[in-house]
Amino acid sequence: MDLKQYVTTVENWPKEGISFKDITTIMDNGPAYKYATDEIVKYAKEVGAEIIVGPEARGFIIGCPVAYALEIGFAPVRKPGKLPREVISADYGLEYGTDTLTMHNDAVKPGQKVLICDDLLATGGTVEATVRLIEQLGGEVVGAAFIIELTELNGRNKIGSVPIKTLIQY
Amino acid sequence: MDLKQYVTTVENWPKEGISFKDITTIMDNGPAYKYATDEIVKYAKEVGAEIIVGPEARGFIIGCPVAYALEIGFAPVRKPGKLPREVISADYGLEYGTDTLTMHNDAVKPGQKVLICDDLLATGGTVEATVRLIEQLGGEVVGAAFIIELTELNGRNKIGSVPIKTLIQY
Repeated sequence: MDLKQYVTTVENWPKEGISFKDITTIMDNGPAYKYATDEIVKYAKEVGAEIIVGPEARGFIIGCPVAYALEIGFAPVRKPGKLPREVISADYGLEYGTDTLTMHNDAVKPGQKVLICDDLLATGGTVEATVRLIEQLGGEVVGAAFIIELTELNGRNKIGSVPIKTLIQY
Repeated sequence: MDLKQYVTTVENWPKEGISFKDITTIMDNGPAYKYATDEIVKYAKEVGAEIIVGPEARGFIIGCPVAYALEIGFAPVRKPGKLPREVISADYGLEYGTDTLTMHNDAVKPGQKVLICDDLLATGGTVEATVRLIEQLGGEVVGAAFIIELTELNGRNKIGSVPIKTLIQY
């Protein structure tokens, strides 16, 4: 399946000059959503994932069906103040300033093999912070899977040692 | 499976006096997450769902694997400013003030049978606004499914005519 035809490019969103890749038109199409998920499920099996971790909110849309298909757990990475129990946190740089991601401190068990899932690999800031959170809990990041990769932004370099799978490249 | 044993009650969160029902301990357990999802999948088949709609962000965790299992689409309901294309919006009342939910204006097709999925039915404000969004697009809400229902808060009354399925009641 040519997944790219289901991606909608939205010009000048969220700001002037950005060509935003909208995946909601993959998700609202049953066969396209199933195909994209199954490609990541195959990859999750290859790398031996024991739990899926996804950053809010689009990481939930990608990672949750992968976890379901493999009958393994899903652990959310969220903005501060969103998770109800004790969390660990990691800061990451934005174009201007920094942002913070958090994870429950029991979300990943020491030694557990983790696959990170998200919609888009751009500069890699979110995934790099997510890797740090998982490693802080003693988890082993066996891979990171994305629907889309913006290759010009070199996000791969941010998480050099982590194997990466992307389904569509721009 | 007694799903209730996987729910964690967090006292005084997000504020004093609230007993928060945390479902992340269902989600990070593979068999519990699978069981909960499959119960909703069964219900989705009964009501003939053709697309799943879920409000951010926990609605994605519940609804996305249901959509995947049925090979149907998933359409997100999000806070303002999060969806890149043209949206419709609906306000709903909070304890103090109001909040707004949005949906892409092509997310649901006229006549499409929609199942709403979310983690928790409390006062019903979010689901009632979601029903309005779907109906504004001409969709037919055939049901709403939740992991947890807080029966004292009478959320069912807010969406009187919509069939409701909940897996755990408090």
